[in-house]
Amino acid sequence: MERNERSTPVPGKEKEVDIINIKGIEDIGYVQPDSILLNCLTPEENTGCQHGLYFQDGERRVDYILTYHIKKPSSSRSNRQSSRFTDNAFTRSIRRGTARLGRAPTPQPRGDPEVASQDHSMDYHVDDKRLHREEFEGNLRDMGMELEKDEDTKTPGVGFVKIHAPWHVLCREAEFMKLKMPTKKVYEMKQSTGVGAKINTLVNKATEPLYPNVEDNRTHNECPILYVRLVLPFLSYQVFEVLKRTKCTKCGPCNACYVLTFCCSVFQLLYEEWASYSVFYKYQPIGLVRKYFGEKIGLYFAWLGLYTQMLIPASLVGVIVFLYGCATVDDNIPSMEICHPKNNITMCPLCDRACSYWKLKEACGTARASHLFDNPATVFFSIFMALWAAMFMEHWKRRQMRLNYEWDLTGFEEEEVSDHPRAEYELRVMQKSLKKEHKTQKVLIGYSGFIGVTFAIVFGVILYRISTKTALHMSNNPTTRSNVRLTVKTTAAIINLVVILILDEVYGAVARWLTVLEVPKTDKSFEERLIFKTFILKFVNAFTPIIYIAFFRGRRPFNWVFFPRQCAHGGCLMELCIQLSITMLGKQLIQNNLFEIGIPKLKKLIRYIKSKRRSFQEEEREKKLQRYETDHFLEPFAGLTPEYMEMIIQFGFVTLFVASFPLAPLFALLNNIIEIRLDAKKFVAELRRPVAARAKDIGIWYNLLRAVAKVAVIINAFVISFTSDFIPRLVYQYMYSPDGSMHGFVNHTLSYFNVSNFQDGKEPMDPQHQVEMCRYKDYREPPWSNTPYVISKEFWAVLAARLAFVIVFQNVVMLMSDIVDWLIPDIPKDISLQIHKEKILMVELFMKEEQGKIQFIDSMMPCGGKEKRNNHAPIARSRSIPHTHSHTHANNF
Amino acid sequence: MERNERSTPVPGKEKEVDIINIKGIEDIGYVQPDSILLNCLTPEENTGCQHGLYFQDGERRVDYILTYHIKKPSSSRSNRQSSRFTDNAFTRSIRRGTARLGRAPTPQPRGDPEVASQDHSMDYHVDDKRLHREEFEGNLRDMGMELEKDEDTKTPGVGFVKIHAPWHVLCREAEFMKLKMPTKKVYEMKQSTGVGAKINTLVNKATEPLYPNVEDNRTHNECPILYVRLVLPFLSYQVFEVLKRTKCTKCGPCNACYVLTFCCSVFQLLYEEWASYSVFYKYQPIGLVRKYFGEKIGLYFAWLGLYTQMLIPASLVGVIVFLYGCATVDDNIPSMEICHPKNNITMCPLCDRACSYWKLKEACGTARASHLFDNPATVFFSIFMALWAAMFMEHWKRRQMRLNYEWDLTGFEEEEVSDHPRAEYELRVMQKSLKKEHKTQKVLIGYSGFIGVTFAIVFGVILYRISTKTALHMSNNPTTRSNVRLTVKTTAAIINLVVILILDEVYGAVARWLTVLEVPKTDKSFEERLIFKTFILKFVNAFTPIIYIAFFRGRRPFNWVFFPRQCAHGGCLMELCIQLSITMLGKQLIQNNLFEIGIPKLKKLIRYIKSKRRSFQEEEREKKLQRYETDHFLEPFAGLTPEYMEMIIQFGFVTLFVASFPLAPLFALLNNIIEIRLDAKKFVAELRRPVAARAKDIGIWYNLLRAVAKVAVIINAFVISFTSDFIPRLVYQYMYSPDGSMHGFVNHTLSYFNVSNFQDGKEPMDPQHQVEMCRYKDYREPPWSNTPYVISKEFWAVLAARLAFVIVFQNVVMLMSDIVDWLIPDIPKDISLQIHKEKILMVELFMKEEQGKIQFIDSMMPCGGKEKRNNHAPIARSRSIPHTHSHTHANNF
Repeated sequence: MERNERSTPVPGKEKEVDIINIKGIEDIGYVQPDSILLNCLTPEENTGCQHGLYFQDGERRVDYILTYHIKKPSSSRSNRQSSRFTDNAFTRSIRRGTARLGRAPTPQPRGDPEVASQDHSMDYHVDDKRLHREEFEGNLRDMGMELEKDEDTKTPGVGFVKIHAPWHVLCREAEFMKLKMPTKKVYEMKQSTGVGAKINTLVNKATEPLYPNVEDNRTHNECPILYVRLVLPFLSYQVFEVLKRTKCTKCGPCNACYVLTFCCSVFQLLYEEWASYSVFYKYQPIGLVRKYFGEKIGLYFAWLGLYTQMLIPASLVGVIVFLYGCATVDDNIPSMEICHPKNNITMCPLCDRACSYWKLKEACGTARASHLFDNPATVFFSIFMALWAAMFMEHWKRRQMRLNYEWDLTGFEEEEVSDHPRAEYELRVMQKSLKKEHKTQKVLIGYSGFIGVTFAIVFGVILYRISTKTALHMSNNPTTRSNVRLTVKTTAAIINLVVILILDEVYGAVARWLTVLEVPKTDKSFEERLIFKTFILKFVNAFTPIIYIAFFRGRRPFNWVFFPRQCAHGGCLMELCIQLSITMLGKQLIQNNLFEIGIPKLKKLIRYIKSKRRSFQEEEREKKLQRYETDHFLEPFAGLTPEYMEMIIQFGFVTLFVASFPLAPLFALLNNIIEIRLDAKKFVAELRRPVAARAKDIGIWYNLLRAVAKVAVIINAFVISFTSDFIPRLVYQYMYSPDGSMHGFVNHTLSYFNVSNFQDGKEPMDPQHQVEMCRYKDYREPPWSNTPYVISKEFWAVLAARLAFVIVFQNVVMLMSDIVDWLIPDIPKDISLQIHKEKILMVELFMKEEQGKIQFIDSMMPCGGKEKRNNHAPIARSRSIPHTHSHTHANNF
Repeated sequence: MERNERSTPVPGKEKEVDIINIKGIEDIGYVQPDSILLNCLTPEENTGCQHGLYFQDGERRVDYILTYHIKKPSSSRSNRQSSRFTDNAFTRSIRRGTARLGRAPTPQPRGDPEVASQDHSMDYHVDDKRLHREEFEGNLRDMGMELEKDEDTKTPGVGFVKIHAPWHVLCREAEFMKLKMPTKKVYEMKQSTGVGAKINTLVNKATEPLYPNVEDNRTHNECPILYVRLVLPFLSYQVFEVLKRTKCTKCGPCNACYVLTFCCSVFQLLYEEWASYSVFYKYQPIGLVRKYFGEKIGLYFAWLGLYTQMLIPASLVGVIVFLYGCATVDDNIPSMEICHPKNNITMCPLCDRACSYWKLKEACGTARASHLFDNPATVFFSIFMALWAAMFMEHWKRRQMRLNYEWDLTGFEEEEVSDHPRAEYELRVMQKSLKKEHKTQKVLIGYSGFIGVTFAIVFGVILYRISTKTALHMSNNPTTRSNVRLTVKTTAAIINLVVILILDEVYGAVARWLTVLEVPKTDKSFEERLIFKTFILKFVNAFTPIIYIAFFRGRRPFNWVFFPRQCAHGGCLMELCIQLSITMLGKQLIQNNLFEIGIPKLKKLIRYIKSKRRSFQEEEREKKLQRYETDHFLEPFAGLTPEYMEMIIQFGFVTLFVASFPLAPLFALLNNIIEIRLDAKKFVAELRRPVAARAKDIGIWYNLLRAVAKVAVIINAFVISFTSDFIPRLVYQYMYSPDGSMHGFVNHTLSYFNVSNFQDGKEPMDPQHQVEMCRYKDYREPPWSNTPYVISKEFWAVLAARLAFVIVFQNVVMLMSDIVDWLIPDIPKDISLQIHKEKILMVELFMKEEQGKIQFIDSMMPCGGKEKRNNHAPIARSRSIPHTHSHTHANNF
């Protein structure tokens, strides 16, 4: 892998690409995460807009910046004009004889003494990198890009390569990517007249303040937009990086100027109408977001917007369900019976020795509170939320389709070409063959190790709970005792949250480590595997404690006779609810918002301080930084994965345990309203402007959402039937109740225990109570039956009812989701009509052109044309199917 | 809607299309289902190959035939040469002044007396039709098609329009449809060396006899094939009909001759290597099928082939499971106990009064037989078949992808354009607005009525069963008695089958009627709705009796105390099995094969006889029929719906109740091996050659298959847990058995009944038995308990276990299916590699061409080129992205 000989530095022979040893752009000295697209200015800085946005000639716009480290301070530090360097770089690249395909650049005199002296002073490795860099730059020029180097900036140690993509290159790339110009006519739909139209107008009027104050459509129609991708004939024709430019064809001579203004105006609009908390109630200007950041980020915000929008009805219904619980809390017969002053039921102790007998009345508060989350309305709400999730998926499909159409992505196919092997993969393949087994072993160890850690920590929390509880019970202070339950639950939930937050960071690193160990072949598969692993780990992390509380806590194995349930009436659900709300709120507040705002700011500060310390002429630099230099101090864009991940975990909270926490959608809604503007601010001001990436859909995230929605159905079914008392109540009412009411339900669920049956050393130490019989919550035979303490028939009946409910619930909800899926068409009707009409238009154009061609050929060949035409026609027409835009030109041709 | 005035028959003014009153091709007098594509000849007729395959000039091939009815025998019957008619038709169409877009045809003298006299003798309506027909033919000519009329055939009353599509038209259409020429290089995959390669060679050698004897690849590479679609500027540019042609570019002067030979050779190959029972063990020559019949039919046969192939492992495992049942029948403790000579259990009568007490020993045979289908292996087999279904879906996706690639359909998009409103829809829309409510009412009545009929008939069958059974029981003949069960079951199953067969035909008509009532907007939606309805009705029809037997028979409502189960030990499963096998075999043998072979033959005969009776010169006609006339007597192609429907119902039998009938895949396999060849024969020889249709996938059928597979999981879960004794056995073994074995299971499942508890008039009339206690199969408290005859704890425990099994089974199988779905990539690796490499090739070509263009422009504009290029380049390059084939030409350009 070492290549130390520098005798013939890539001779200029006729080969297209030199791919030896070049594994990635990092290898040739560029700082990859530092490849930045220029940010537009924040409005306050708008006066300095012109600085560094243009080449030295003041005409060619800087489209793209590459930065690299310079080991040694440049020897020509006094030379402030970087235009000379442009020539130098150019000259050097010729002297090195980089591979060149087409037209030769203007020849320059060879042998630059300055360069020679530089070469001498550098070590071999750095020189090698520079060599490749120059070759790379040569290739860029061959592609038609125009470059300017600036090694003499006020940021020492960093060199900048400014790239300008001329118009014809943009056109070529656009054509290459099969881009349609947005010359679509917007076909007017038939306006319905009468009352419908009036209502429509009224609705439009009423919702007007909700729309952002941007005239997106106007600019869209006026200036066709080209999205341009840089394709380099480098590393065997793989796409290197993506550029996004907005250009204007018919704007006359002020073209370049317009682009700048346009760009700055877009930025300002975004800043005012999007990245601001004051517009939180408005729709997002997605078109603008996409123009400035590209489709991938545009899709994220569109998705987030739709999700937030869809949360509104969900949280409304959730609040209604909650209020229904509040309103009916006094009509709830079981809790009335528990709280009744005449209720004198003595309960068995909840743990061995340390715990004492207690009165059921003590659980009055919990029983009342648990009714808020455990009433028939929650069953309805679970079904509602499952259908809501299905609706959300369908709506997103439609929204995506609409955006695809509006953004001219209908013909765009996900680039297979970019599926090239990752540099690291190629490197590893060689090593791997030697130690394949070792790798597999490592992966296995990695997995088992870290799954082990998860469970260890979960069990740790459980142990903590049990021990705290016992300790608190043992203390004889009655005030402590009465608050025992709530205190234990809340502290445990907070500890859980802290553990989750810490583990989340750990798991992020673990997922990356595991994926690196696996050495996936392509960048895409690397990303997908990483996302998948991170998702699984974080999901398990966030929901393990909750699932434990919902289904396993308080349930001892079958043959432990005493006392299989530790939650009091509705206690489990209550506890689940506390855990859910604390985890959800805590995660959102601490992890998302605090971390998301704080950490980038901190990093920016650190970067700034660090570079300040290194600099020599900081006073001068601070005065007038070039645009690309100020951007250099911003945090680089790290991808959308964390944003999506956060949202998908939240989606999990909203759908997975919605049966026990109907307020989850409301919390999510409130969080997301802030989240949108927060993310917007971050993208606009805190991060370097990311390179635009095209995307048709949100990729793997959609599948993960679907998976969460599917799991949600079964989990909700189990929560309703096993965690809540819904099924036992129903069974009691219809099978056992003497008068068909709920009276006597509490008594029915409690079994009898004769205190003389306590095993030695298990009876409570507390001498206060003198009881003969105590009660516990389970369906078991009484001590006086033939088979005392054996599970009773009621238990099996209730269990069968619970299981039957799960089956019915799961299948009904799945069927209903499928029906929703099937009823809502994936493509909105107006869009499919538009596409249809466009196709007809294309056919018309094509037929007309054909007619014209035949006439043309006939006129060219006046005699015997028929025979000839049969042979010539295919060649003359062999160019492929035109898009609408190409035809308008072809007619001129 | 009437248009009786014929004064100015569509004047020749400058309008493109006259769409008034033309609702469809039927309206202008063509017999639509009679639009035929010429069949190739059967080998026996090969000598007469030339007849009617060409125009009168003997050079232009007949590509397409339109037929229409002539009300009056042609006045020029003596004129045997139809070439004159060609001119006449041509002349007339000019005289009528049909709309014409481009080059004018050779002018002809106006005013033909013959035509005038014809016009006079026809009534207005017929003339009106002819008018439109001629306009339509004029439009066809404008599209470049060449037409020849032949009204003087030996088939009186039928006129033929022969169409020839010239080469340049084919090219235009091909280009229009974005067809790629198959100029792909086949990239050689790296051959693995060593043992792997040797094994590969061996496998190839061994499977060689399985491959059909056609050199498909050779012809594929030699002659690029164009698939051509006829686009008519008719009814606002909607696609009217599809033509498929095979043509050859580089075959020199013998082009036309070659095409014929090719076509005939394809036909002969298909006849020998495909449509023959002797090659049943071979793969199908799908490439050839697609060449001859088009992609849609090709996909059907590919699907059928894959399905049959996939049935091989399924039936193998099924047979093994069955054999396992046979082998273990003697080790089965419950049946051993039932058959044990010392077993003296007296069972309670199975019906009121008429039935008598019986000995459990009598059920010995049934118990032993039922073990064949009710053993632990069937549980495994159910899971296996659910995964098998998932695998089948995935494999089909891959196969489809591969075929799409091989058939150059990757870029093809399902035509949105063909989604034009159906003629009938437009007609109805006007009427509908007046009586919308009436329509809805009608639809509702239709649905409810016919769903009612279904259930009525099902209940009829149930009543029949009960009454027969009682009657048979009452007869005192002991021989009859002993055979009672089997006789009843078998006759009932046969009656069921007959009912199903009759109802199937009824339901087909009902579905069509309902769909017509709904008036769907487009042809595609009409077809989909029709298929969906037919599927639902036929599916319900086929499976209602089976579901009744599996889950409801023998289970009376909850409060009917005596005797809730009527099937003896394993009896229900046994009965289910009989019903399944008779329905399945009967449907396949009678409906599919008998009907499918018999009815077309019969129809052909009737057509022939009918036309014979009408004909005047039958002797002469029989001697030498034109090719298109013999084809006229074949059955028209009615679409693939019945074929797919048959197969999907079979798929239902294979997957839905596989837990109770492990031999279903075997029966399906045997049927399909015949079915493939039968269908092939039908398509090749019995039907008119259908017009080729392009298709990327099998459309709605895939969704239906998925739905069946989904339903199968839950139904199998219920069959295993509720119909079979699997769960009760498990529960007994692990909860109640004293020694952990199955001994005592039979006794455990039988409850006691004191005969003195019989209600008045319900005790058996049979005076033979003097018993005190009888037993019945249920979990109820004995008469001596505190709560006699109440459902016992065991019942609830077993029920809970059954339900838990359903939940576990359903979710585990669904999860496993999802994993299968996720593990098997949708695109085969080699195909994605090929596509990737083709893209790289395209990029290379594109870059080279760009380079060439720049050089060209530079050489054209030696000075100041740079500035100009920026403006010119977009226009010069504005033609859209090239496909590989267009580039090979473009380089010449």
